[in-house]
Amino acid sequence: MQLFWLRHTPGTAPGTLAIAEPPKEPPRSRLMEYGLESLHETEVASFDELSEPGPGLVGWLDVEGHDVEFISELGRRFSIHPLALEDVINVGQRVKSEEFEGSIFVVLDHFFIDGDSGALAKEQISLVIQSNLLLSVRERRSDLFEPVRARLKTGRPRIRGGGSGYLAYALIDTVVDHLFPILESIGDRILEVEDSLLDTPTRDDVSTLHHLKRELLVLRKSMWPLREMLNRLRQSDSELVSEETRLYLRDVLDHAIMAVDIVETLREMVSSLMDLYLSSISNRMNEIMKVLTIIATIFIPLSFVAGLYGMNFDASVSPFNMPELRWYWGYPFALGVMALIVIGLLGFFRRRGWL
Amino acid sequence: MQLFWLRHTPGTAPGTLAIAEPPKEPPRSRLMEYGLESLHETEVASFDELSEPGPGLVGWLDVEGHDVEFISELGRRFSIHPLALEDVINVGQRVKSEEFEGSIFVVLDHFFIDGDSGALAKEQISLVIQSNLLLSVRERRSDLFEPVRARLKTGRPRIRGGGSGYLAYALIDTVVDHLFPILESIGDRILEVEDSLLDTPTRDDVSTLHHLKRELLVLRKSMWPLREMLNRLRQSDSELVSEETRLYLRDVLDHAIMAVDIVETLREMVSSLMDLYLSSISNRMNEIMKVLTIIATIFIPLSFVAGLYGMNFDASVSPFNMPELRWYWGYPFALGVMALIVIGLLGFFRRRGWL
Amino acid sequence: MQLFWLRHTPGTAPGTLAIAEPPKEPPRSRLMEYGLESLHETEVASFDELSEPGPGLVGWLDVEGHDVEFISELGRRFSIHPLALEDVINVGQRVKSEEFEGSIFVVLDHFFIDGDSGALAKEQISLVIQSNLLLSVRERRSDLFEPVRARLKTGRPRIRGGGSGYLAYALIDTVVDHLFPILESIGDRILEVEDSLLDTPTRDDVSTLHHLKRELLVLRKSMWPLREMLNRLRQSDSELVSEETRLYLRDVLDHAIMAVDIVETLREMVSSLMDLYLSSISNRMNEIMKVLTIIATIFIPLSFVAGLYGMNFDASVSPFNMPELRWYWGYPFALGVMALIVIGLLGFFRRRGWL
Amino acid sequence: MQLFWLRHTPGTAPGTLAIAEPPKEPPRSRLMEYGLESLHETEVASFDELSEPGPGLVGWLDVEGHDVEFISELGRRFSIHPLALEDVINVGQRVKSEEFEGSIFVVLDHFFIDGDSGALAKEQISLVIQSNLLLSVRERRSDLFEPVRARLKTGRPRIRGGGSGYLAYALIDTVVDHLFPILESIGDRILEVEDSLLDTPTRDDVSTLHHLKRELLVLRKSMWPLREMLNRLRQSDSELVSEETRLYLRDVLDHAIMAVDIVETLREMVSSLMDLYLSSISNRMNEIMKVLTIIATIFIPLSFVAGLYGMNFDASVSPFNMPELRWYWGYPFALGVMALIVIGLLGFFRRRGWL
Amino acid sequence: MQLFWLRHTPGTAPGTLAIAEPPKEPPRSRLMEYGLESLHETEVASFDELSEPGPGLVGWLDVEGHDVEFISELGRRFSIHPLALEDVINVGQRVKSEEFEGSIFVVLDHFFIDGDSGALAKEQISLVIQSNLLLSVRERRSDLFEPVRARLKTGRPRIRGGGSGYLAYALIDTVVDHLFPILESIGDRILEVEDSLLDTPTRDDVSTLHHLKRELLVLRKSMWPLREMLNRLRQSDSELVSEETRLYLRDVLDHAIMAVDIVETLREMVSSLMDLYLSSISNRMNEIMKVLTIIATIFIPLSFVAGLYGMNFDASVSPFNMPELRWYWGYPFALGVMALIVIGLLGFFRRRGWL
Repeated sequence: MQLFWLRHTPGTAPGTLAIAEPPKEPPRSRLMEYGLESLHETEVASFDELSEPGPGLVGWLDVEGHDVEFISELGRRFSIHPLALEDVINVGQRVKSEEFEGSIFVVLDHFFIDGDSGALAKEQISLVIQSNLLLSVRERRSDLFEPVRARLKTGRPRIRGGGSGYLAYALIDTVVDHLFPILESIGDRILEVEDSLLDTPTRDDVSTLHHLKRELLVLRKSMWPLREMLNRLRQSDSELVSEETRLYLRDVLDHAIMAVDIVETLREMVSSLMDLYLSSISNRMNEIMKVLTIIATIFIPLSFVAGLYGMNFDASVSPFNMPELRWYWGYPFALGVMALIVIGLLGFFRRRGWL
Repeated sequence: MQLFWLRHTPGTAPGTLAIAEPPKEPPRSRLMEYGLESLHETEVASFDELSEPGPGLVGWLDVEGHDVEFISELGRRFSIHPLALEDVINVGQRVKSEEFEGSIFVVLDHFFIDGDSGALAKEQISLVIQSNLLLSVRERRSDLFEPVRARLKTGRPRIRGGGSGYLAYALIDTVVDHLFPILESIGDRILEVEDSLLDTPTRDDVSTLHHLKRELLVLRKSMWPLREMLNRLRQSDSELVSEETRLYLRDVLDHAIMAVDIVETLREMVSSLMDLYLSSISNRMNEIMKVLTIIATIFIPLSFVAGLYGMNFDASVSPFNMPELRWYWGYPFALGVMALIVIGLLGFFRRRGWL
Repeated sequence: MQLFWLRHTPGTAPGTLAIAEPPKEPPRSRLMEYGLESLHETEVASFDELSEPGPGLVGWLDVEGHDVEFISELGRRFSIHPLALEDVINVGQRVKSEEFEGSIFVVLDHFFIDGDSGALAKEQISLVIQSNLLLSVRERRSDLFEPVRARLKTGRPRIRGGGSGYLAYALIDTVVDHLFPILESIGDRILEVEDSLLDTPTRDDVSTLHHLKRELLVLRKSMWPLREMLNRLRQSDSELVSEETRLYLRDVLDHAIMAVDIVETLREMVSSLMDLYLSSISNRMNEIMKVLTIIATIFIPLSFVAGLYGMNFDASVSPFNMPELRWYWGYPFALGVMALIVIGLLGFFRRRGWL
Repeated sequence: MQLFWLRHTPGTAPGTLAIAEPPKEPPRSRLMEYGLESLHETEVASFDELSEPGPGLVGWLDVEGHDVEFISELGRRFSIHPLALEDVINVGQRVKSEEFEGSIFVVLDHFFIDGDSGALAKEQISLVIQSNLLLSVRERRSDLFEPVRARLKTGRPRIRGGGSGYLAYALIDTVVDHLFPILESIGDRILEVEDSLLDTPTRDDVSTLHHLKRELLVLRKSMWPLREMLNRLRQSDSELVSEETRLYLRDVLDHAIMAVDIVETLREMVSSLMDLYLSSISNRMNEIMKVLTIIATIFIPLSFVAGLYGMNFDASVSPFNMPELRWYWGYPFALGVMALIVIGLLGFFRRRGWL
Repeated sequence: MQLFWLRHTPGTAPGTLAIAEPPKEPPRSRLMEYGLESLHETEVASFDELSEPGPGLVGWLDVEGHDVEFISELGRRFSIHPLALEDVINVGQRVKSEEFEGSIFVVLDHFFIDGDSGALAKEQISLVIQSNLLLSVRERRSDLFEPVRARLKTGRPRIRGGGSGYLAYALIDTVVDHLFPILESIGDRILEVEDSLLDTPTRDDVSTLHHLKRELLVLRKSMWPLREMLNRLRQSDSELVSEETRLYLRDVLDHAIMAVDIVETLREMVSSLMDLYLSSISNRMNEIMKVLTIIATIFIPLSFVAGLYGMNFDASVSPFNMPELRWYWGYPFALGVMALIVIGLLGFFRRRGWL
């Protein structure tokens, strides 16, 4: 996973629109105009077609994928501030909400498991909330917002009559809700590592822990500002956010705080497992050393005794030269000495609690 | 212990009521209507029977276990906000209090030792405080609130005349008080591990410490928001909480802060014990290695000397070929060399402080 | 040292008075009535004797030891709020100050070295400040407040004319001042451990460090709320605390902050010593292993050479079977090979910096 | 990299101008006077030439390199407060913004990779914002501000009409933007170390990690005050910062917060890698010890058996003296015993999971 | 270095003046009376000589060393609050500023390298600021304030006309400036240890690191309150601090914040070096073990083979008894087997990356 994204060349004017790599697919934009009574959906090819939403209607322009030219045109058409526009293009922005005159600009991170690599991936979702229009820009085509689209089509009064602010809430809620399955899968993997560590720790467990730590780091880096952003949005005095919508934003904020809590808890668990692993390695080392020490300290003295009586001193020269070799009970005597050594050492080890 | 609970499918409308698994027992709900003079208790089978509590009376509807349909009906009957209703169903919510028009919604965690597994378990308790009605919803049947019920029946004026706010306080106080025996049992287990560590540390101690750490992590994750929630409730300007009740809430808050302090202290003790364990392992390793080193460094040179005189050089060929073997004092000489080596090494070890 | 104290049974009404164990001594209470001109001291047997202090006089009722009945009577006589009364009985409360109508309730921890066990012990001191009366309740008889008593008797105008608020300050100041000798003795023990660690670390040092860590944990758990409490008291708008007394409370607060600073500094020193100990163990392990490695790697090859020429191949069968054994310079040659090995290895070790 | 810079001699009067080493190049100062319609650039040799910028024009005096005399003259000419002047000279100041009457003084750190040493280096950039004049002082000649100069020349209305405040923003933005390539290169080096650690950890990895940690420490020490400074500047009530410029400052602040986030994330990664390295070393130690233990514990008993039958007890003296040596199947029997030992130990190791 | 100082006996009245040890030198006090036009300096033997400074003049009484009687007299003469007086005597107070009616009391720590021991030492400096008088009390005679004295004599208008507040600033600035050479010398010693650690780590490095850690702990304990104190002084609404002086206090505050930043950075470096040392020890252990393992695992099997053919089975008894000994190529065969073992093991080690 990329840690962060290249920004524009230092020194260029703010609002300069430029991106590093061209998008893989051409951008697609769909307009949904709806009110309590009516709903109309079209795919938008050119912005010239676009007219203001009728009175009492709300327009939702959902853009998947983007290129510089496309976004510039969009900015001109909807009078978006150049700084907001720059942040739409230069993905990798910090999660935030910024108020401009007559509009609120929101940047979100959507985390998902990349289908190809199976790794945690992230896309930036930018929302521009205006009085009767919501613009949502995503990095790639996906069915992320399909459930919201479906709820709009079903015609529920709460979402159909809630204005652009409520629609923005619904989209943010969807993005925040997607965090939980991700967190849960990380939690599951942590529990797997824990089982493995408590059973037989392997080197792979450390890599996994390290990997999980990094994923949690990236999630956390995105979630703290999310929490802050939702709080600021909820307390904003902008008229784009109605009293009722504030109540719902409090609910999403609550979920964001839960997500932060879970991330912090998971981080503590990972670091606790790292400790467990280290103590586990030390334990194994102790085991290994104990075996070596027991075997070595028993046999080294025995080997010495055997070596002693393997010396070739000439017993015929002197009565002091290894008379044991000629004793009648010489060999049994040597074996007996060895047995005593073994018994003594076993007793020593038992007293130390090593056996 | 489960780390957290599955939430609803991302993208569904807020207030959608759905739960993962059906409850084990059918829900039971008991209504207690009381005033200073009277008290009447009934088991409620259907909400159609329910009428508003008479003037000057307070109704307490205590629900144990729940299913979606049941809670929906309840929500309709008592006009509970859909967001609150969703949180009642989707247990695993963060501890919090939320004010809606004319009601306060409180989520609590009740920790208990699960009878079957002996493990720490948690149930969510939701309270809805309205002007003359208190609704409490629990996950399972238990005698948690029996003492409060008994105090009501005894007819003490403070609780009988205190309104729904004071009753809510009484229930919260009961839940918070249940934290202390749990904390105490964790404290006891920590002291046991400490004794074991200071005596003879075993691998089980680490598992126990790791386990205690996780339990404290779960408790802490619930207690910090509890503290925050009680503070917010106490400072709330809602008329559902009377001046006198605020004084009592300050008292519960104080207990919650004590609980947080204790959890933090226990966490520090666990981590201090982990350090103690690691230093203890290192110490044992040192002991083991010292024994190995002493035995090995003493006998390895001895064995070499023995091996030296076990060589088969033909002494008859040359006067330089191992003349020692034919010396009169050869064998005693060799033993003497060995003795000198032993004495030298023992002196060396003593000087190093290893003996 | 006990980590925390059993609280009342969960679910009992607030203000229920019950304690776990009966006190060892019967409570003693002494009343001191004083004004600028007069001072009168009596031992109080029954509260019926008590009358309001005369005009311009302040009464100080100092209670050492207590039982439930005694405190209940006290509470009734001085109209103390049941919540405060409960906290007086259930010692082990958090350090705090609470304002009730017409009175301030203060809980303090007094730390002392227990005479019997030599361990750090703690007693709760409760103060109830009323307009012309100060009630102080302690767990056991001691001469803690004798200096204050003496200052009152000496007749210094500042304390004699300062009202119940200033008297409360004097008692709090006394309790806070008692922290410093405790901290100093811990500091001294830390310096002793440091000396031992820098000289020859032993296993006892770790136990001592662990023990000191726990004592500091307990002290810290009490001091942070002390600081907070004194600040709140100083900024309280109660008329029980005069302008002049606030100045003095600022001084105690300052001492409390100093105590917190010292505790934090001592904690850092303990943890720094723990690190020092661990590095010290690792160092010793390195030393031990180095000795083993040097001895073993020198003699193992030598022993091999000796073993080689101890083989019994029949030299008479073939000219290739160990002709060295029959060489004229065979034995010196073998010894020379060994010497070369030793020289080579010593050079290797020196190059590595092991010698 | 230097940790911090020598300040003036303690006790000298504030505003005393003195620097440790003379600059390498003579200072160069360039004046750019511009308005919406006109732009005029000159190299300034003496400050006597300087006249006030014409009405509606803004003057930007960009000074590269400086000496004491030069800056004193500058201070006199533009009535800069002596404290600000002292901070311009004594580079190594903390990043900050200070308001004086009629001017704002800003200190920034510009980080760059030093061309000669390839190490991270830092220069202080001081800005003095006055109503129609911006003074920027840098430590050395570089093309850092060329892009801004170019944008001014191109004649874009936003920068040409934005006043000295907007110009200051443009310079700050340029400096902040230069942080990202630095951070990215550190991030890349961290990923390289990570790859190396997960593959085959070497000692160099630790040095690199240590080095990266120090670079991040220096960056962080500069970035936290940067964040604070930009926030203060944005919320300043000075009329030198227009409403529109505040919007742009919010954008730079946002980038500074991103930079802080990235630095903190990188720091966590480095410390996580340090853990990985340590666990990796422990693992390798385990591996090494396992090999030694397996080989040693297998061969030590075998060698003992061989040594046993190498003893020279005289079998002719007694039937108990090593009769095995004369058995018909003696040698195969000994080999068999050895084989049994090997099989037994291999089984033991396999059961322990060491093979 | 002493960790903290003995305070007065617990329970004594506030303002009681008593010190632990008598001063080494008699106190010396010098009075400097100055205005824009005049300056007069005298050594003060008795306070009876002292008269109020003339109109428009400021008096600075600088006291070096003190005893109880001297300070009591001073307190009476200048009507200093007893609490302030107590803090002047009981050195070891926390750095702080306290406002009393008509005066500000400031406590500072001056750090210096003790000439005798070469260790870091600390003296308390107390300032009492009154409308036209500044009292400074130091623990010992030194030339700390000579530069300020010199600036006064030179007759610079800023200090001569700045009042007692500006003079206090000048003294505080001098004390704060003295922190930087201390910090720099600690920084230098850290860099030395770093070099040593990256080259060949020794045990002394750990002691040095531990020592540096403690010095930084003591410095930090003093600097955090310094920062806080300067901020409070700057924002004080006392008329003793003029607008212009506030500007200068902001400058000292800035330096204090820099000092805090540097202390924190140095602390992080020390702890990073501790990690480096530990990883370095582990690395060396690995090296040592690798050498032992390689030598041992190569020679142990060889020795076994040698031992095998050193057995004394009687080949004459049976054709199975060590026929190898009589083979024509027996010895070369044995050597060949050994060579194969060596080659095999070397290959194994190379594959593991140990060679």
